Amino acid sequence: MIVEYISVGTEILLGNIVNTNAAFLAEQFAKLGLTAYYQTSVGDNKARINECLSIATGRADIIVLSGGMGPSAEDVTMESVSLFLGKDIKEGSIEGSEVIPNEFGNSAGEIIVDSGHYYILLPGQFNEIKPMFLKYVVPYLEKISDSVIMTKTVKIAGVSENEVEEKIKDLIMDHSNPSITIYPKSGEVHIHVTAKGSDEAECDRLNKPVIKELKNLIGEYIYTTEDEVSLEQSVVDLLKSNGLSISCAESCTGGMVASRLINVAGVSEVLNNCYVTYSDKSKHKILGVKKSTLAKYTAVSEEVAEEMSQASAVSNKADVFVSVTGVAGPDSPYEGKEVGLVYIGCNVKGKNKVKEFKFKGDRIKIRECATTAALDFARVCILEYITETQFGLNK
Amino acid sequence: MIVEYISVGTEILLGNIVNTNAAFLAEQFAKLGLTAYYQTSVGDNKARINECLSIATGRADIIVLSGGMGPSAEDVTMESVSLFLGKDIKEGSIEGSEVIPNEFGNSAGEIIVDSGHYYILLPGQFNEIKPMFLKYVVPYLEKISDSVIMTKTVKIAGVSENEVEEKIKDLIMDHSNPSITIYPKSGEVHIHVTAKGSDEAECDRLNKPVIKELKNLIGEYIYTTEDEVSLEQSVVDLLKSNGLSISCAESCTGGMVASRLINVAGVSEVLNNCYVTYSDKSKHKILGVKKSTLAKYTAVSEEVAEEMSQASAVSNKADVFVSVTGVAGPDSPYEGKEVGLVYIGCNVKGKNKVKEFKFKGDRIKIRECATTAALDFARVCILEYITETQFGLNK
Repeated sequence: MIVEYISVGTEILLGNIVNTNAAFLAEQFAKLGLTAYYQTSVGDNKARINECLSIATGRADIIVLSGGMGPSAEDVTMESVSLFLGKDIKEGSIEGSEVIPNEFGNSAGEIIVDSGHYYILLPGQFNEIKPMFLKYVVPYLEKISDSVIMTKTVKIAGVSENEVEEKIKDLIMDHSNPSITIYPKSGEVHIHVTAKGSDEAECDRLNKPVIKELKNLIGEYIYTTEDEVSLEQSVVDLLKSNGLSISCAESCTGGMVASRLINVAGVSEVLNNCYVTYSDKSKHKILGVKKSTLAKYTAVSEEVAEEMSQASAVSNKADVFVSVTGVAGPDSPYEGKEVGLVYIGCNVKGKNKVKEFKFKGDRIKIRECATTAALDFARVCILEYITETQFGLNK
Repeated sequence: MIVEYISVGTEILLGNIVNTNAAFLAEQFAKLGLTAYYQTSVGDNKARINECLSIATGRADIIVLSGGMGPSAEDVTMESVSLFLGKDIKEGSIEGSEVIPNEFGNSAGEIIVDSGHYYILLPGQFNEIKPMFLKYVVPYLEKISDSVIMTKTVKIAGVSENEVEEKIKDLIMDHSNPSITIYPKSGEVHIHVTAKGSDEAECDRLNKPVIKELKNLIGEYIYTTEDEVSLEQSVVDLLKSNGLSISCAESCTGGMVASRLINVAGVSEVLNNCYVTYSDKSKHKILGVKKSTLAKYTAVSEEVAEEMSQASAVSNKADVFVSVTGVAGPDSPYEGKEVGLVYIGCNVKGKNKVKEFKFKGDRIKIRECATTAALDFARVCILEYITETQFGLNK
């Protein structure tokens, strides 16, 4: 079935907001096995919404609209749809519609079936659309489609999209059900494995061997196969289940690694504090990096990253201590050290590792990539420690 | 003149990427005084791009396309436009086109004029589109329009969109040239003052009294009237020009304030280090918050925010020391202290202030709002200090 998404709201046409709803819904459509050829944005204007409805109805089976569903005079989406379909609005709903409850806001959504087309109306707020779509619209669309679609997401860090593609291209070529698609996601790579079957059990049966094969091919890079688990969540979970604490010292990322860890509710169980040590002086005073090391190798070096994660001046050091130092740009203060060069260190209970990275992009992009890399490097070092401990190597 | 934007790329329809180009271009169109009624996204498919071109040409004067301009077989935007217009491609450009140089990537853009319509083709990468549009397309569009449009952006923090609207609604009603529009921007409010005139001098003459009136009405909240200056940049500029240094101690924001400050290239002149003190223990040990204060008032209190920004245990304390402590959720560990309650402290050379905030939203939203509020509170406290020092009150 073909789906088309229309976002309603003059604020989109004025550039007041970035349309995150569009990306979320597009990904959901893909997961449901629906085909999308077009997306449209239109202002809060009945004549122009009517034009969009007319075009979309001519080329899609399912038309999803969001925005303009509130009680104010500017909100004309429902009125436009009712006029387009020639149906009345009674007690705030279009005749014959099915209401989609909104547990996080005041404007409910609705679904109208007309001449073989489905019109799905949603409010405009992302934090309302997301739970409404997942809880009510997904089951509805699964019901009307002739089959069940199930997507498993395999999340990967520490490797580029191209490298992943190279490693799994034969697997992708060999499979059409489930289909395998690669999504780059700000420094990470997500792989969607999407099966179509007569019921969930069949989808599960189809997906399982492919997930297993992915684990064989690129298992070392996979941090989760759960939709809702972020990279920082996977690190925090790993720490909790192994009774380990974490801290970090950041130079170029300047608080971004700490901030990602603290995104996780309940992180207080494993994190007491972190340090932003931007200057050479603070790396020496707070962390205990030797002045001679800073002078000889500069702050952006394997040696300084190592001493930062050793954090000899920190008392009651956390079990896992991550360090980041690099050149975020726009210029490099060090000869021969280019913008994008980053060293990440990780010390797990005294055992130290440092890795060199070269990132591309502007200052913010380089800092974001370094943050994701630091979280992933911590994950890998913790896993290595656990494995070695289990086999008695660290005892 | 009416403009329509078509973004080309299957990755948009699959939800792989959020369409930030659309918001940027929409804002630029508005600044240029162009009217936009629709935006469309379409995949890398000649027939469907043709359909979009046909619809857009029927309802707009200027059609801007982005994406699908590379050398690979999937990139079919130029071919689609050439087929639609019945013009040949010669040496990589459409017949009679004007090339838009791309200084940050390999794919140039182009402008084609046909039967009273302007077709502007741009690549898909935001970091390429932005400089190309500002440097080449803006002057071109100004040239073809019958008048010059000039927008000044007045940026505000520390006050809600509704409060701003209330304070300046008479000014908005009284003016049509320049027009005054309010844009909420993640915890900030931006006001666009857009004049239309025969030349830049006339626009400037029209804008100036309105900017002055805005400064009269809401001057205390304005942190800049420069397009390219962010809130963190304005704080860093203020510190630099007054020879002050800054540091911060963050609990619920956990590194986000430091990270925003370190967004600014050259921040090393004013920032040595910052602290993430998430646990009570670290607030006591690292900052010197008294155990008795933590026990009596809890970590989320005016008293703890004050002692955090006093940072009595920190040696060589920065001139400006900002503290943030609050309940980011999803649950509150303290009875009677709701999710979203945040205290922000700021100590400028020994003079301390604390402010209470109540934010709404999920964990990430609350942390983002607290971060913006902390940067703005620092700005206000620094300004107060400077004013008092100038008048000799602190001497």
